[in-house]
Amino acid sequence: MSSGLWKSVLVTGSSRGIGLQLVTELARSCNRPGIIIATARDPTTSTDLQELSKTYPGVHIVKLDVDSQQSISSALEEVQSIVGNKGLNCLINNAAIGFSMDLNTVTPEAMMKTFQTNSVSPLFVSKTFLPLLQTAAAQSSGMGIHRAAVINISSILGSVEWTWGESANFKNYAYRTSKAALNMLTRCLAVDLGSDGILCMSLHPGWVKTDMGGPHADLTVEESVSGMLSVLSSLTEYDHGGFKDYRGQNLPW
Amino acid sequence: MSSGLWKSVLVTGSSRGIGLQLVTELARSCNRPGIIIATARDPTTSTDLQELSKTYPGVHIVKLDVDSQQSISSALEEVQSIVGNKGLNCLINNAAIGFSMDLNTVTPEAMMKTFQTNSVSPLFVSKTFLPLLQTAAAQSSGMGIHRAAVINISSILGSVEWTWGESANFKNYAYRTSKAALNMLTRCLAVDLGSDGILCMSLHPGWVKTDMGGPHADLTVEESVSGMLSVLSSLTEYDHGGFKDYRGQNLPW
Repeated sequence: MSSGLWKSVLVTGSSRGIGLQLVTELARSCNRPGIIIATARDPTTSTDLQELSKTYPGVHIVKLDVDSQQSISSALEEVQSIVGNKGLNCLINNAAIGFSMDLNTVTPEAMMKTFQTNSVSPLFVSKTFLPLLQTAAAQSSGMGIHRAAVINISSILGSVEWTWGESANFKNYAYRTSKAALNMLTRCLAVDLGSDGILCMSLHPGWVKTDMGGPHADLTVEESVSGMLSVLSSLTEYDHGGFKDYRGQNLPW
Repeated sequence: MSSGLWKSVLVTGSSRGIGLQLVTELARSCNRPGIIIATARDPTTSTDLQELSKTYPGVHIVKLDVDSQQSISSALEEVQSIVGNKGLNCLINNAAIGFSMDLNTVTPEAMMKTFQTNSVSPLFVSKTFLPLLQTAAAQSSGMGIHRAAVINISSILGSVEWTWGESANFKNYAYRTSKAALNMLTRCLAVDLGSDGILCMSLHPGWVKTDMGGPHADLTVEESVSGMLSVLSSLTEYDHGGFKDYRGQNLPW
C-alpha cells in the first residue's frame, strides 16, 4: 500500500470473516490508515475485534446494524465525531448474509431477508454516510481511496453473464439475485456520485474459506483480503463503476 | 404467428397495460392459442378484461395476486382444471410495479415492495406452475413456445451494463435493482429448467405509453406487444437464457 494513501476507512460486518480480516490487515499495515472504523451488528461478540482495537488505537469499533435505519443514523453521529472535518474517505459495504438454497428449497422469506441485507442496506448505509464522503471528496482531487470511495463487496455469483458452465453448480437464488441487485446499486451510485468525485465499484473477494464460504473454498481469507487491499490501493477514475475481483481482473456484469 | 404454434398461455398482471394488450392481441389473432389465461390481482376491476372473455370463449380469467403464495396455489388448481393433461405451454411473468425514486427519495419500503413483486413473485409463480410446464414440455420436442417457456417481462433498465449515457437519466433505484435481480432469476431458472425442455428468457417491452411508462414513452402498447409476440413466436433453443427486446435485438446483461 502506498504511504498516505489510506486516510480513513469504514468496514461494515467486521466482527468476523472478510470484514475482520480487512480491518486487521489495514491495522497491521506499515501504511495503516489514520482512522479505521470497524462496525458490526454486535461488536461485543467478537473478541478478535476487541483485541484489535486494544492493540491499535487507530481502530475504532462502532455498533452498526446495517438493516436498521436507526442504527445507521446513530453510527453516523459516532463516526462524524471520530473523523471530524476531514470526512470519511472509504466506505466498504461488506456486511452480507448467504443462504444456500436451490429451486426446491428457496423461500420468499429467504429471498426478502437476503435482499434486505445484501442490496438494500448498502444503499441506505451509503446514502446516510454520503455527507461524510462528500466532505472528504471536497478536500482532494482525482479518484480513488485517497479521496472518497464506496466499495461494495459483491460476488461473481452476482454476475448475470457468468451463470452457466462452472458457475451453474452454485445453486443459490437468494444470494445470486441479491448480488446482481447490489451490482446494479453500484452502477446507480456511480452515476449519481461520480460528479462529487466519489469512486463507486463492486469487488469480488473470490471464494473464501469463511463461515459463509465453507471449508471447500479456493482461498484463505488472508489471500483474498491481501489481494483486495492491493486492488483498492491502485484504484483510479478508470475503475469508477467497475466490477473487479481480488486479483484486479475485470468481471462481466 | 405460425399456425398451431401457440397452444396455452398464461399472462400475469393482465388487467391493464402490457398484460391486457398481450391477452387481447393473442385473442384477436387468427392463430389464437386454444387457451389464454388472463390473470389479475382483482379481475373484477377490469371491464376490458371482462369484455374480452365474453367475446372470446378461449380467454379464461383467473384471480392471481402474485405476491401471495396462497393466491398462487389457488390459481394453480384453477389453471390445472382448465389446461388438463396438456399442461401449460407458456407462462408470461408480466405483473410488475414501478416507483420513480431517485437517490434522494428512495425508501427501504419501496425497495422491498418492488423486489417482492418484480423479482420474488416471478420465482414463486414459476416454481408453483412448474409441474404444468413440465407436463407440456414432456409432450413435445425442441425449444420454444410450442413446447414450454417461462417469459419474464424485464426491462433494459435492469441491464447492469447499460446504466450510463442516455440510461443515466432514468433514476430509479428500486425498479432497476428489481429488474437486475429478475434477469438473474431468468438465468438461474434457465440453468435449472433447460434439461426439462423449458425455455426461459427475459424480454424488454420497450418504453411503452402505459400508466407505468407515462405519456412521454417511445411506443404505443400496440407497437410493443405486436413486436413482443413476434419475438416470442420465433424463439428457439438459441434464445434459452437470453435477454431480448421487443424487436428481437439481444440486450447486454
